[in-house]
Amino acid sequence: MQSSGSVQRGGKSIRVYDFRSEKKTAKCCNLETTGLDFNRFVQLIRKEFQLRKNDVLVLTTTDRKVLTPDRFENLPDGSTIYLLKQKHQDLPCATEEQIDFTPHYNTLTKSGASVYYASEDQKSLPYALAELIDNSLSATSKNKGVRTVEIQMMFDETFGKPAVIVLDNGCGMTSKQLNNWAVYRLSKFMRENSTVASENEGYVRPDPVPRSLNSDMSYFGVGGKQAAFHIGSSVRMISKPVGSPDVHELILSKDEFERKEKNKEYVYKEVIRNRKPGDSTHVKEDERCLRPLIAEEVGKESFTAVVITGVKREHIISLKNDFNMWTRELAHIYHYYIHGVNGNDMSSCPPGSDNPSIIDIQITLREKPNKCPCAINLREVESDMQTQYINAAKDTFEFRASTGPDNGTVEGILRYHPFLYDKETYPEDPSAKQDTAEEDDLGVESGLLNKARGKRPIFECFWNGRLIPYTTVFEFDWCSQPSKGATLPPECYSRFSGVLFTDDRFEVSTNKLKFMDLEIKLRNKDTIFSTVVKGQKSAKRSNIQKEFTQWLQSCHEKYDKQVKFLGFKETITREDV
Amino acid sequence: MQSSGSVQRGGKSIRVYDFRSEKKTAKCCNLETTGLDFNRFVQLIRKEFQLRKNDVLVLTTTDRKVLTPDRFENLPDGSTIYLLKQKHQDLPCATEEQIDFTPHYNTLTKSGASVYYASEDQKSLPYALAELIDNSLSATSKNKGVRTVEIQMMFDETFGKPAVIVLDNGCGMTSKQLNNWAVYRLSKFMRENSTVASENEGYVRPDPVPRSLNSDMSYFGVGGKQAAFHIGSSVRMISKPVGSPDVHELILSKDEFERKEKNKEYVYKEVIRNRKPGDSTHVKEDERCLRPLIAEEVGKESFTAVVITGVKREHIISLKNDFNMWTRELAHIYHYYIHGVNGNDMSSCPPGSDNPSIIDIQITLREKPNKCPCAINLREVESDMQTQYINAAKDTFEFRASTGPDNGTVEGILRYHPFLYDKETYPEDPSAKQDTAEEDDLGVESGLLNKARGKRPIFECFWNGRLIPYTTVFEFDWCSQPSKGATLPPECYSRFSGVLFTDDRFEVSTNKLKFMDLEIKLRNKDTIFSTVVKGQKSAKRSNIQKEFTQWLQSCHEKYDKQVKFLGFKETITREDV
Ligand SMILES: Nc1ncnc2c1ncn2[C@@H]1O[C@H](COP(=O)(O)OP(=O)(O)OP(=O)(O)O)[C@@H](O)[C@H]1O
Ligand SMILES: Nc1ncnc2c1ncn2[C@@H]1O[C@H](COP(=O)(O)OP(=O)(O)OP(=O)(O)O)[C@@H](O)[C@H]1O
Ligand SMILES: [Mg+2]
Ligand SMILES: [Mg+2]
Repeated sequence: MQSSGSVQRGGKSIRVYDFRSEKKTAKCCNLETTGLDFNRFVQLIRKEFQLRKNDVLVLTTTDRKVLTPDRFENLPDGSTIYLLKQKHQDLPCATEEQIDFTPHYNTLTKSGASVYYASEDQKSLPYALAELIDNSLSATSKNKGVRTVEIQMMFDETFGKPAVIVLDNGCGMTSKQLNNWAVYRLSKFMRENSTVASENEGYVRPDPVPRSLNSDMSYFGVGGKQAAFHIGSSVRMISKPVGSPDVHELILSKDEFERKEKNKEYVYKEVIRNRKPGDSTHVKEDERCLRPLIAEEVGKESFTAVVITGVKREHIISLKNDFNMWTRELAHIYHYYIHGVNGNDMSSCPPGSDNPSIIDIQITLREKPNKCPCAINLREVESDMQTQYINAAKDTFEFRASTGPDNGTVEGILRYHPFLYDKETYPEDPSAKQDTAEEDDLGVESGLLNKARGKRPIFECFWNGRLIPYTTVFEFDWCSQPSKGATLPPECYSRFSGVLFTDDRFEVSTNKLKFMDLEIKLRNKDTIFSTVVKGQKSAKRSNIQKEFTQWLQSCHEKYDKQVKFLGFKETITREDV
Repeated sequence: MQSSGSVQRGGKSIRVYDFRSEKKTAKCCNLETTGLDFNRFVQLIRKEFQLRKNDVLVLTTTDRKVLTPDRFENLPDGSTIYLLKQKHQDLPCATEEQIDFTPHYNTLTKSGASVYYASEDQKSLPYALAELIDNSLSATSKNKGVRTVEIQMMFDETFGKPAVIVLDNGCGMTSKQLNNWAVYRLSKFMRENSTVASENEGYVRPDPVPRSLNSDMSYFGVGGKQAAFHIGSSVRMISKPVGSPDVHELILSKDEFERKEKNKEYVYKEVIRNRKPGDSTHVKEDERCLRPLIAEEVGKESFTAVVITGVKREHIISLKNDFNMWTRELAHIYHYYIHGVNGNDMSSCPPGSDNPSIIDIQITLREKPNKCPCAINLREVESDMQTQYINAAKDTFEFRASTGPDNGTVEGILRYHPFLYDKETYPEDPSAKQDTAEEDDLGVESGLLNKARGKRPIFECFWNGRLIPYTTVFEFDWCSQPSKGATLPPECYSRFSGVLFTDDRFEVSTNKLKFMDLEIKLRNKDTIFSTVVKGQKSAKRSNIQKEFTQWLQSCHEKYDKQVKFLGFKETITREDV
């Protein structure tokens, strides 16, 4: 079964080419056949092409299958058939056949499946959820007050079937925008948001901001749909745009796609429900978890709720069991949105108080009627790698890279994690099991290597302020251990971590898991690195390698506290105490 | 601009809801407005809803924008509007609004871009080409005689604009199948290949064959389109199916999509050209490289040619410059299709002579009029990793893994690469630059580790006989160096390489770059490994670890030729010779 081609919208017209003569041009007719059975159709053809009584009639499809009553019945509107002398004769001239190749609905329902499957490491869920958070951050970017994103895992079945809800207090969508939301691959760069062309506000690139925290993370027109159908089998969008009294609702569901395909209906038609806030008269019993959500609409200026149902069993299990893992991963991705440009510096309290446009990302997991829901604000997570790096750092080194003609700018920070008495303070990645396994295998020799950063790459990379989890940058020439002539102990070169911040002059993959060209651009010989002191690019053309080495030297001298016991003699048990 | 919604197919009907009363039901009319201007439309409404002279008329769109003549003109067919008392009043009852959300054509033209972008390692081209070769291998799987796939890079501009051509002598496509080819995400599992349902042959899973070389590599309904639009901006499919005298041609092109969108035409309609073989009357001058191709059609029973034009400049450059790299990569991917189940064992000549269903994958690169084209049969490539592993191996160890309830079976081979006098014979990966860079950085301590296999994973993984390049399996418990009680020198454990062969019970990602679940399934505790001796699974339940260790031991004793010079005294220059 397929959604294309054979959708019949009423009439049925068949195009017939007459190839009984060898002439280089064929007679071609469009015959209206609505209601005709095969016999009457054959009569029509005999008349139309003036066949004589004894003329044999070879009618075939364009696949050269002889037309039978059965095949005739099944011909879709607009089909082409041939009137031939012989079933296998050559075509004296070319024919043209209209086809329809509308993408199959799997485009929407299956696209997420392999996109978020992250090299078997089971982390697909946070990355799918991140797409929905991206959308909420974009939508709330112009909020006057606090920006909130609530992620509710409604797995307590006393409230109906399991649902994943993402609710934000952003600008919402008009019904036209909600329609656009549903169009796969329609990015904001090519979108009409109004029926009147002159009323369209074109896309305006946001002004540069520190760490590129511009909240602009909608790029490809796929994220929301991919994420929703990766998590479940149905998604209900509920949205109220600023300045309109109406709430708009749209449901896309796999079951409905399948039903339409079966009935040969066009699959990409749906109905948006426009209603007043608070009106839940249309909500069925098994979706009663929607009722409180809808009741709360009243009085809100604008909002968007994404309600995913048909949540896959394996996802429910891992959302429950790995709560800490996936909330930590989300806190990592949005670290600088949650904590502001300086990140989660726990020594300066209260956290986030210096952040004017505060963003609350609140997660709630409801499991059982009598069990208290797990709830966490991502700002409270302290185990994410950025929080760890920031708080284990004794000093930082800021720089900037300008890449060639496209004016790309990358902000960078290095953070020094000293050796303190008996251990390195370089943070461990709590979710990196594989690494540890490998280390164990390598046995003793690797002991030395795996101190501090070990073989891990130096830089995590953020795009428009959010982490791109699968791209890391190993190192740059100027911050790697020199092969000869080093004045510093080699270990120092593994005692710093790093972050890179780019804006959208650097491209990311459609699933936002990888950069496309970051490393290539950075390694380009025309890329210029310079130090940044107190937010100011250093005036003179600086020698980054020299300044970095000085910084490293001073870090080592100031912060590393290695106690060496030299010349051990014996252990004395003091009997006098 | 967008392809959905506003396509106007003639008439224009507008649905009007009357909300002037507070009743819970509204009067709703569909008004036929074709040809009406705004004033006449307003009159129609006044009449239809029996408005009195003095009644104020508030007409808004569903976005609550007051209808103006301009907005009225732009309303697409099927739009909904409201007749209100006040612009911002509540809706006393819900309204329903029809929308169309046909995927944007970027679905076809952009999907490849990030899919093949392989973590910045520039290898995207071979993986895109592989999708086209996959299709050709599937299409030729039932060939009686030799199976040929010809890849022609036509970059000699004296033949017209640059083109990439993939030509095979497979079963070809009927016009219905060619239509299906164009439907994004329509996989063979849900496809009608005939207009008559009863004539559809459903998908039949191929019988198990050694190394899963079943030529069945069409799975998701995306590969061909993604690959073509990743390489260029236009693709012409030319195909003649077995048993039909006609050649079918279909062109999909980005320019044409854009043109249709601009004209508000439906973008997913196209024309298939049906013609006799050899007829190139429709070919334009700048595509004259097609003429010899079309001339050669005459007499062929069936074939398919994929002709990609608008080839991106950067691709032309890297196809020219990295010819060895990408042909090696392709030879690697299809190693076992090209060389047969035992791979490219260069000691048994002539190569491939024991392979009944021989497959020729021929690559030609034409650059300049006077320059001889570069041509290579992938079978001649000797630098691909599998060829290297096979020929550097002194002994092999075969095993099989059966995974749980889904009956998955994985065939596996380990190959021993001994130490010979002064060096390991474990092959180096010619395309792995990164690795070497890292090794250098690590300096002396790593010297020991990086001998032989070093930190590379043991297993390359093949799915239905073709390499899945981004999935490797590091090791299994039973073949890793035991942490204590080892009887063999530790280096032995890094002197073997491995291959795994799976069929499609193991899933791969849509771009065929990664397995979804291979490692997880293999590490499952219910997975049973057993040794295979001479193609037979060992009868008794074997202890794989024991048998592996014995094999390793015997390999070490038989093949490792390490010469140790003990007790060096001095170098004597012999003056007597
Ligand atoms: N929570 C929301 N609030 C308001 N508008 C939204 C929201 N979520 C989605 N949208 C609108 O729907 C559009 C489509 O969303 P979707 O995530 O599918 O693609 P995208 O964000 O445009 O691109 P990407 O593939 O990068 O995510 C968005 O561009 C935005 O205009
Ligand atoms: N060279 C060819 N010869 C005959 N049929 C072909 C050829 N190439 C493609 N087809 C047909 O077109 C269909 C679509 O091809 P496409 O590569 O786009 O997707 P697919 O092969 O079905 O799935 P995948 O995404 O795994 O590649 C194929 O399933 C096959 O039926
Ligand atoms: Mg998005
Ligand atoms: Mg394919």
